[in-house]
Amino acid sequence: MSDKPVLEFFDNPRPERDYTITIRCPEFTSVCPKTGHPDFGTITIEYIPEAKCLELKALKYYMQSYRDKGIFYERLTNEILDDLAAGCEPRWMKITASFTPRGGITTDVVAETSAEMGKK
Amino acid sequence: MSDKPVLEFFDNPRPERDYTITIRCPEFTSVCPKTGHPDFGTITIEYIPEAKCLELKALKYYMQSYRDKGIFYERLTNEILDDLAAGCEPRWMKITASFTPRGGITTDVVAETSAEMGKK
Amino acid sequence: MSDKPVLEFFDNPRPERDYTITIRCPEFTSVCPKTGHPDFGTITIEYIPEAKCLELKALKYYMQSYRDKGIFYERLTNEILDDLAAGCEPRWMKITASFTPRGGITTDVVAETSAEMGKK
Amino acid sequence: MSDKPVLEFFDNPRPERDYTITIRCPEFTSVCPKTGHPDFGTITIEYIPEAKCLELKALKYYMQSYRDKGIFYERLTNEILDDLAAGCEPRWMKITASFTPRGGITTDVVAETSAEMGKK
Amino acid sequence: MSDKPVLEFFDNPRPERDYTITIRCPEFTSVCPKTGHPDFGTITIEYIPEAKCLELKALKYYMQSYRDKGIFYERLTNEILDDLAAGCEPRWMKITASFTPRGGITTDVVAETSAEMGKK
Amino acid sequence: MSDKPVLEFFDNPRPERDYTITIRCPEFTSVCPKTGHPDFGTITIEYIPEAKCLELKALKYYMQSYRDKGIFYERLTNEILDDLAAGCEPRWMKITASFTPRGGITTDVVAETSAEMGKK
Amino acid sequence: MSDKPVLEFFDNPRPERDYTITIRCPEFTSVCPKTGHPDFGTITIEYIPEAKCLELKALKYYMQSYRDKGIFYERLTNEILDDLAAGCEPRWMKITASFTPRGGITTDVVAETSAEMGKK
Amino acid sequence: MSDKPVLEFFDNPRPERDYTITIRCPEFTSVCPKTGHPDFGTITIEYIPEAKCLELKALKYYMQSYRDKGIFYERLTNEILDDLAAGCEPRWMKITASFTPRGGITTDVVAETSAEMGKK
Amino acid sequence: MSDKPVLEFFDNPRPERDYTITIRCPEFTSVCPKTGHPDFGTITIEYIPEAKCLELKALKYYMQSYRDKGIFYERLTNEILDDLAAGCEPRWMKITASFTPRGGITTDVVAETSAEMGKK
Amino acid sequence: MSDKPVLEFFDNPRPERDYTITIRCPEFTSVCPKTGHPDFGTITIEYIPEAKCLELKALKYYMQSYRDKGIFYERLTNEILDDLAAGCEPRWMKITASFTPRGGITTDVVAETSAEMGKK
Repeated sequence: MSDKPVLEFFDNPRPERDYTITIRCPEFTSVCPKTGHPDFGTITIEYIPEAKCLELKALKYYMQSYRDKGIFYERLTNEILDDLAAGCEPRWMKITASFTPRGGITTDVVAETSAEMGKK
Repeated sequence: MSDKPVLEFFDNPRPERDYTITIRCPEFTSVCPKTGHPDFGTITIEYIPEAKCLELKALKYYMQSYRDKGIFYERLTNEILDDLAAGCEPRWMKITASFTPRGGITTDVVAETSAEMGKK
Repeated sequence: MSDKPVLEFFDNPRPERDYTITIRCPEFTSVCPKTGHPDFGTITIEYIPEAKCLELKALKYYMQSYRDKGIFYERLTNEILDDLAAGCEPRWMKITASFTPRGGITTDVVAETSAEMGKK
Repeated sequence: MSDKPVLEFFDNPRPERDYTITIRCPEFTSVCPKTGHPDFGTITIEYIPEAKCLELKALKYYMQSYRDKGIFYERLTNEILDDLAAGCEPRWMKITASFTPRGGITTDVVAETSAEMGKK
Repeated sequence: MSDKPVLEFFDNPRPERDYTITIRCPEFTSVCPKTGHPDFGTITIEYIPEAKCLELKALKYYMQSYRDKGIFYERLTNEILDDLAAGCEPRWMKITASFTPRGGITTDVVAETSAEMGKK
Repeated sequence: MSDKPVLEFFDNPRPERDYTITIRCPEFTSVCPKTGHPDFGTITIEYIPEAKCLELKALKYYMQSYRDKGIFYERLTNEILDDLAAGCEPRWMKITASFTPRGGITTDVVAETSAEMGKK
Repeated sequence: MSDKPVLEFFDNPRPERDYTITIRCPEFTSVCPKTGHPDFGTITIEYIPEAKCLELKALKYYMQSYRDKGIFYERLTNEILDDLAAGCEPRWMKITASFTPRGGITTDVVAETSAEMGKK
Repeated sequence: MSDKPVLEFFDNPRPERDYTITIRCPEFTSVCPKTGHPDFGTITIEYIPEAKCLELKALKYYMQSYRDKGIFYERLTNEILDDLAAGCEPRWMKITASFTPRGGITTDVVAETSAEMGKK
Repeated sequence: MSDKPVLEFFDNPRPERDYTITIRCPEFTSVCPKTGHPDFGTITIEYIPEAKCLELKALKYYMQSYRDKGIFYERLTNEILDDLAAGCEPRWMKITASFTPRGGITTDVVAETSAEMGKK
Repeated sequence: MSDKPVLEFFDNPRPERDYTITIRCPEFTSVCPKTGHPDFGTITIEYIPEAKCLELKALKYYMQSYRDKGIFYERLTNEILDDLAAGCEPRWMKITASFTPRGGITTDVVAETSAEMGKK
């Protein structure tokens, strides 16, 4: 994670209450590692903050850092969850990634911090 | 809260029944404390009244009192919940705040009175 | 309730089964008791009949009886629930009232027969 | 049920698995027994098959058999559920009937095989 | 399954976490075994991967292999679930197949790996 | 036209002005003369009245008179235009008929009084 | 027009320029003179002002004055055009009235000041 | 055109009037001659008949004849126009072909009989 | 116009060609001079540039300068057209202002540089 | 244009007819030369081919060549029109570029080959 933009945080203004913040980034783009063509999608972050909240400007730079990066959908979604959850240490976080169609096929990936192993 | 417009209330016409009132204010605007630019959003209030119901005209003035106020999304949502719940003393209340995109990123914040601390 | 149109009913054709009837009345209008201006909304009735079903023509006259009546949203919704539930004696009934915006603010009220007191 | 078209069935190709079949018939019409005017609606059938699945061509004829029949919404919905469930013997079946507006009022009726008596 | 295109897989990049992948194929076509006319629909695959993820290019060839195959909706949906689940060995998988209208009637079929026998 | 319901008319309340009346009948049904199956569609009438306006209740009976009639789309649309224009003698009239899909194919027919022969 | 609310006007702030004002009143209701039942619709006014602009509060009272008036759609639309054009003396004005369905049939009426007699 | 299904026609029931028939075929599929992958799209036919109208069942077979044919979008649209116009000899005909996205890019082609050479 | 933010411009990169720029500002707010309450709306600017193009950041400040200004819809729309056209000297410019409902009534105002006096 | 990907063309299959090709590229991204942040938009190309048609794969590479290029909306739209029209020599071509909101403001630019100088 050393070459990624540094995420920034601000103090949760009401840590004694569970509340949900939803951030939608419809301008996400990365690169398909197989074809070298750009991928496009929408990344949605939902979380319940503990002590820290995600600062939006730094988050935007973080999202832009994928612009030239070759990465598959499944790894990408889990990596964003890992990075944001590691930095923000939320009570709960979920990442929903929805990509535009390729070859007539559309893919979404959804990962969250609290999913234990086993059948849903 | 001293410089805010006074909220007004009327008697709940059917206190012996739990029922839900939903109030949508799509014309909300405040000011970003960082950039000084106006923010725009929709504030939705849902609640189950106890003895008192929110009077809509006073509520409109309350919402308008944020027009020149510099405040971040997260604090704003929790503050509205605190103010309205303190005045109205409802059995349950939830505030959903949805803001327009900034830098290609959209943010919603949802807080409610009954959320206990811990993972969702 | 003496000056209201008489509701009419017909025998539930399948009382041995729980099933749901939903009736939507988008042409509801009453009068705001404060301003004297007309209010407009949609009243939706959902119920599980016991012995009797609501006859639609009489229901239409009942709804029209509010046309010149000054009444607030919260009282109106609960009153319709009380009237219809008293006449129809359903196993369960819910009234959803959605009103058009006033001063940029929109209000919905939802009440049902089975809501016990306390937090939702 | 003697004058109704005969429903036809085919063997459930995977009886060892619970799966759901949804059939939507938006071209349903019957006759109002009170006014003699035609009624129009959409009938949706959802079911989990046991040994038999509904054959669609025979089902179409069954639906067309209501074209000249005078019947109220509530009886109609329950009758379709009774007929289809009696013939198909499904693990579960639900009928949703949505009719077009009459006198500014719209009605839906929903019935299913598993609803026990009492409050929902 | 011998004459079908070989499905391909890649290693699940985060097997220690339950997360959901949704793949939508709106360009599905097969042949009605009764009339010989083409059928058209959308196949949606949702799954939680165990060790393997579905490779999308091979999946596209698999979907195209139905182009000249005569098969009914119910069998088709279950067969896709069986094929994909057998190859991918997911923690959970669900197939939703939505077909275009025939004779004014629309059909959807939904099957999943975890549905035990009995009423839903 | 002898066995059709009699159309009725009322005096145009403002004959000195050209104005347009649009009547939409989404509950039209007739019978396919080839298959015997019902057809469904929406008939839209637009006209500029001269001395007479179409009375809506008689128009409804006129539309219902097609319920058991076997007739193709193209003849039907022109026949409705001929009947209504003959009775109403409007300054201008247009009929738009939109039918539901059959065999995956949807058909609309549009005819108006003023279309002279030749290329559009 | 003696018993109607008085329309009010303010000076056109830019009479040297042709520009268009569109006013939409979706909360219109009058009474059907035949059945005595309320009618509901949306009245849209478009005009190019000459010396005077329509004052909106007085216009609202004017629209409300139809609440208890029995009047057919065609006469209503032309009467509103006559009243507003007589008071406002615009360069051009058009009224579009769209009413909710009755007996499955929907009606719109459109009239404007500049329509000369003859075919459209 | 020798290996194509024979188009069929019926007599135009009102040849003395110009009227428009619109036929929408959303279930079109052909094959990309470059990649061998199937293409999917919607073909819309609009025409003013002269002596003959397109028979829909034969048209459906004509459309299905492209299912295994390798052909580019531009040639396909013009070929359908040529075939249908040659057979039907309409006063005017237009073909609109809308294809699903490939590589994030969507293509439509529109051709009509009356377009003379030169700038639009 | 002395207390308004200064509009800024950049050189039209292709003055030898007529082309259209459309700028939509959905976050406009001003104050009603009668009631003192805020008004909300969307301002859309369409223009064909001559030598200068509107710089968007300065335009945003210009739009924000109405935040505390009491002004009616009709004057506002014409004033924005006057200000922007005076500064930008376009070949053509049109302003469309759409305001949110007040008292159940919605208003739009549309003004453009080229409208000569007289009927539309 | 030396460092841009080479556009490719294929022979117009029906040069004797004017017909229109519309190509929509919703996955366009470039860089704002002022802020260095990425811009996102949809580029739509409409043209009537003369001798040559645009080959879609080369067009995709052409569009991707803007990914790292700093360029303003107005120059970009005109440059794409110049490049494509120079290469393709169409009878007519139009470029519509629609960008996502920045600072609450959305911009579209539309340019075409045939626009002569002067007012629209």
